[in-house]
Amino acid sequence: MATPVKVHGPPLSTAVSRVLACLIEKDVQFQLIPVNMPKGEHKSPDFLKIQPFGQVPAFQDESTSLFESRAICRYVCEKYAEKGNKGLYGSNPLAKASIEQWLEAEGQSFNPPSSVLVFQLAFAPRMKIKQDQSLINQNHDKLAKVLEVYEKRLGESRFLAGDEFSLADLSHLPNTHYLVNATDRGELFTLKKNVGRWWAEISSRDSWKKVVDMQKHSS
Amino acid sequence: MATPVKVHGPPLSTAVSRVLACLIEKDVQFQLIPVNMPKGEHKSPDFLKIQPFGQVPAFQDESTSLFESRAICRYVCEKYAEKGNKGLYGSNPLAKASIEQWLEAEGQSFNPPSSVLVFQLAFAPRMKIKQDQSLINQNHDKLAKVLEVYEKRLGESRFLAGDEFSLADLSHLPNTHYLVNATDRGELFTLKKNVGRWWAEISSRDSWKKVVDMQKHSS
Repeated sequence: MATPVKVHGPPLSTAVSRVLACLIEKDVQFQLIPVNMPKGEHKSPDFLKIQPFGQVPAFQDESTSLFESRAICRYVCEKYAEKGNKGLYGSNPLAKASIEQWLEAEGQSFNPPSSVLVFQLAFAPRMKIKQDQSLINQNHDKLAKVLEVYEKRLGESRFLAGDEFSLADLSHLPNTHYLVNATDRGELFTLKKNVGRWWAEISSRDSWKKVVDMQKHSS
Repeated sequence: MATPVKVHGPPLSTAVSRVLACLIEKDVQFQLIPVNMPKGEHKSPDFLKIQPFGQVPAFQDESTSLFESRAICRYVCEKYAEKGNKGLYGSNPLAKASIEQWLEAEGQSFNPPSSVLVFQLAFAPRMKIKQDQSLINQNHDKLAKVLEVYEKRLGESRFLAGDEFSLADLSHLPNTHYLVNATDRGELFTLKKNVGRWWAEISSRDSWKKVVDMQKHSS
């Protein structure tokens, strides 16, 4: 039996949950290793050896250590190409190029405003941090513009990169889950015909439901 | 003879110059197609067909259209694997995983603060836009922290992903070029022993010198 890969970090973290969703889609066994972030464990010398920026997740597969959630997902798809969902990272060069394009759109256009909103609207109140209303408004407008492009795209194809669910769609799950379920901005997604249809479909995948379940059972 | 690929956008754009540096490294013939951004050509219906976010660059290779500079670079490296610099995107899965990790570190950790500084310090004055000093200070501090991690990493290996120049290093060229040559923040790089040595080496590659030359001869 292969040694399970190791994921260091809490499932409540959006970047950790991106990696977990990918591992479950790819049917790769993993071991989740807690990192006590309130106690600053992610800034400890031992942790910095595997994640030099002091962020989560850190990932280990035998002697390979990696960080950056999207890079970890790419590695998992390449290394375990023959396991689980084989189309997740494309089955030919053109499909892969389209997935990379929308995965970068997520990282560069969708993630910056959506992660600010997730922090400000879902996490700051729980952490008793004062919200910055001007930052919220500014990023709400940015995200709304990005989602107009998505609405058009998702009127032309079932998923972002084409007719198959891919890493590009998966990468949107963590932030969108919080925005829809833990803030008052869910209608940015659910009231749009195509984005709403897409969100209903990708969020009801078994892989993502398992991640949400792990989030509910973690502290 | 193969039809040259098309790059739409001005070489002065950091994202366009990232793609140009990659094409030159890979020895792939290209045609540069001007986009009159002051006139809003990047927001025209025709341009939005190939770049729905209305940003540059847009890229075309025969019937394939792509956007997002890092996704275009990956496509070029995969499609033209046998041309030019064959190690640019790694010659084995482990090398590739390390390149992806540092390419994502560039996109997620280095690019956000450095692109704010490039805009505020190099472009805003030329465009007669008022600078935001608090934004500059905040992003200066963020970038300084990222470069501390780079300084350590580049004390352990010659380039970010290992012993060979790769797409991960290349992706840092556009923003760093402006910061070093067109702002007063160059010492963030040049005064650091390892980062300074790395910058001197990657910025003196023929490919990058050709891009800088194209920038000088464009308006």
